[in-house]
Amino acid sequence: MKEFALSKVFQLLEPGPVLLVTTAAKDRPNIMTMTWQMPLEFEPPLLACVIGPWDHTFTALRSTKECVLAIPAFDLIEKAVDIGNCSGRDIDKFHKFRLTPLPAEKVSAPLIAQCLYNLECKLIDRVARYDINILEVVKAWTNPDRKQRRIFHANGDGTFAPQGKNRDLKDRMVKWQSIL
Amino acid sequence: MKEFALSKVFQLLEPGPVLLVTTAAKDRPNIMTMTWQMPLEFEPPLLACVIGPWDHTFTALRSTKECVLAIPAFDLIEKAVDIGNCSGRDIDKFHKFRLTPLPAEKVSAPLIAQCLYNLECKLIDRVARYDINILEVVKAWTNPDRKQRRIFHANGDGTFAPQGKNRDLKDRMVKWQSIL
Repeated sequence: MKEFALSKVFQLLEPGPVLLVTTAAKDRPNIMTMTWQMPLEFEPPLLACVIGPWDHTFTALRSTKECVLAIPAFDLIEKAVDIGNCSGRDIDKFHKFRLTPLPAEKVSAPLIAQCLYNLECKLIDRVARYDINILEVVKAWTNPDRKQRRIFHANGDGTFAPQGKNRDLKDRMVKWQSIL
Repeated sequence: MKEFALSKVFQLLEPGPVLLVTTAAKDRPNIMTMTWQMPLEFEPPLLACVIGPWDHTFTALRSTKECVLAIPAFDLIEKAVDIGNCSGRDIDKFHKFRLTPLPAEKVSAPLIAQCLYNLECKLIDRVARYDINILEVVKAWTNPDRKQRRIFHANGDGTFAPQGKNRDLKDRMVKWQSIL
């Protein structure tokens, strides 16, 4: 894992990839699959995500105020779907899905070795009436060794799609040159 | 344009597509390009999005409390990028980009005839400290006549990518059968 610039973290979230969220409360570490999130600020990188009392992760997130957002590539699609269809109440998901937890630097929740990127996050605020959690990314990691690099998206109907081929339109981004 | 079920609107937002936002204040209607949004609730369909005082659209959204979210397909990629790189302060974007405004049913902001879907929205709340706007979709439309159906994603670095080919994993979605 190599360090990834905090100033570029919004670029990982902006395309709207399926994410894995790890937490570590007093009991074993856990993983959930998340698709409802958006960037909020460039730097320090802030994001909003929907995690609520119906998620087992919510208890750990609220008590530790920490989590890791891991970005899987398309080779982990089945695992990501299955992780989102069982509960950490019942099973040890790292063990069941043969994912490797790695120690993070600034939070107690583990990184996932098999993911493309891992974002160490602090829960800095909540908007309780909509179950919106405000996270600040305090450390980011990239895993340059993964061969499959395509992120993927959830369509909300049980179908999923990898990101297609990039089209470079940088020369048209006249208003946003400073963030590219 | 055909009516689209409100119960399925979250499925349009969940993959994280680039959106066009129309508003209609006292002056001419306007369009902005938006990529920072997420679903909040299945039904009634709620979503959160980041629009703030730095956006010309913000004034119209705040005064009318209405907008339309239009979902373009990949054939509109250059227009969507260019719309996001100029301001409605200076120009009439519907005219400049040869897009056709159609009257909406429940809001004053226009639909965009060339988009795949149009979501009529009411601004029901704001979380001012993060410039988060809470929108309720009150009417949704699909345009079955468009040939190009691929949504697309922004990578935040001036590159963009169409959604790839869908993979059907419905049979693994044991926990979420009720929403498929």
